[in-house]
Amino acid sequence: MTEELLYAGKVKEVYLTEEANKVKIKFADKATAGNGQKSGQIEAKGRLNTEISAHLFTYLENEGISTHFLEQTGLNEMLAEKVDIIPIEVVLRNVAAGSLSRRLGIPEGEELSPPLVEFYYKDDALDDPLLTEDHIQLLNLAGEDVVAELKRLGLLINSLLVEYFQERNIILVDFKLEFGFARDGSILLADEISPDTCRFWDAETKDKLDKDRFRNDMGQVEEAYQEILQRITGKVIQ
Amino acid sequence: MTEELLYAGKVKEVYLTEEANKVKIKFADKATAGNGQKSGQIEAKGRLNTEISAHLFTYLENEGISTHFLEQTGLNEMLAEKVDIIPIEVVLRNVAAGSLSRRLGIPEGEELSPPLVEFYYKDDALDDPLLTEDHIQLLNLAGEDVVAELKRLGLLINSLLVEYFQERNIILVDFKLEFGFARDGSILLADEISPDTCRFWDAETKDKLDKDRFRNDMGQVEEAYQEILQRITGKVIQ
Repeated sequence: MTEELLYAGKVKEVYLTEEANKVKIKFADKATAGNGQKSGQIEAKGRLNTEISAHLFTYLENEGISTHFLEQTGLNEMLAEKVDIIPIEVVLRNVAAGSLSRRLGIPEGEELSPPLVEFYYKDDALDDPLLTEDHIQLLNLAGEDVVAELKRLGLLINSLLVEYFQERNIILVDFKLEFGFARDGSILLADEISPDTCRFWDAETKDKLDKDRFRNDMGQVEEAYQEILQRITGKVIQ
Repeated sequence: MTEELLYAGKVKEVYLTEEANKVKIKFADKATAGNGQKSGQIEAKGRLNTEISAHLFTYLENEGISTHFLEQTGLNEMLAEKVDIIPIEVVLRNVAAGSLSRRLGIPEGEELSPPLVEFYYKDDALDDPLLTEDHIQLLNLAGEDVVAELKRLGLLINSLLVEYFQERNIILVDFKLEFGFARDGSILLADEISPDTCRFWDAETKDKLDKDRFRNDMGQVEEAYQEILQRITGKVIQ
């Protein structure tokens, strides 16, 4: 099977396959934070994020969201539709935390109602800066209709995931989505949905069950990812 | 005359007067940059900015813009209508420079068409962060109708000033405006309009004629401010 590397991200690699419209995505155990300033390994993270993402993409597909996910093809790899990634990270926030709290002085834990949608420029060299809708037009990153659709999809996915995690005793604090254009021009949810890209808090204890444990050297990082997998699938990865 | 200090800014002081709806604003020679990290004196800056602001407010009033300016009452002071400042800095950009170039990687000097409007949170402790319109609603800084009006006024003032400076061989690169609510609820242009708050480039040489000379230790700071005053009023301050 052809295994030509198409794109190497910080913690994932995307390979071409023999089918022009499909790619294979491999999830590494590597972890980075602060736009790569901090780097390390989280045991089994590649497998955990593959399982978690595959599960959540399947859930969203069943709820009517079009995603790039096709099937899990190995312990830490999935087959996905090849997309042209839109260079805009769509961030949804239900509770203040992280950069929002730091930038705007909103105490961590404050509920945001309605949920907040933010756009960031997917550009490592610039450290993924915040974008206004006028910036998006200025930089020609996406038309106004596409921006409106990203916002609509982001909010819809948020409401589906909030409900899903609520039932599993998890608060979905915030998360980052990426979207891409498929060959037919349709917009697909892409990238991954995992404790790397979401903030999850235990609903009772408010314990962090996501990459913040790595960012903030809190320990028990793998255990947190395992906990998320276990609560959504019942599975434990050995 | 009552001289009770109402508010001390980084380079201006606002005093109450015997009339409840009027304040006196005194302009200092002090200069700051990087949110106060860098500080110094620019000879005669207080008088220069008073003259320049008074002149530009008068021009804008004559063009139909409501401002807080009432009259110049001394070499470095003016009488103004008392307003409740809206804590949103409205930034207009015609040419990429400064933080826009740094944040989004747009080369300095690139023309922006249409002009870009940005909002920043007027909060020194947070270092005046960029705001999206959703952030403004989240923080309850102003209603959506007020935000739309700030944008409309900002673009109108920009087109008036661009034309005014063009005739004086000056490129208005970008500038920051502040607005406030008067007692009757109307929105007035407030603060100042000067080389402290605007980027001015000579149209031919592209020489900087503004606070960037201070920010970047380029020298001839006072001379640049004098040049602006001279081109718009014919005056020279001794």
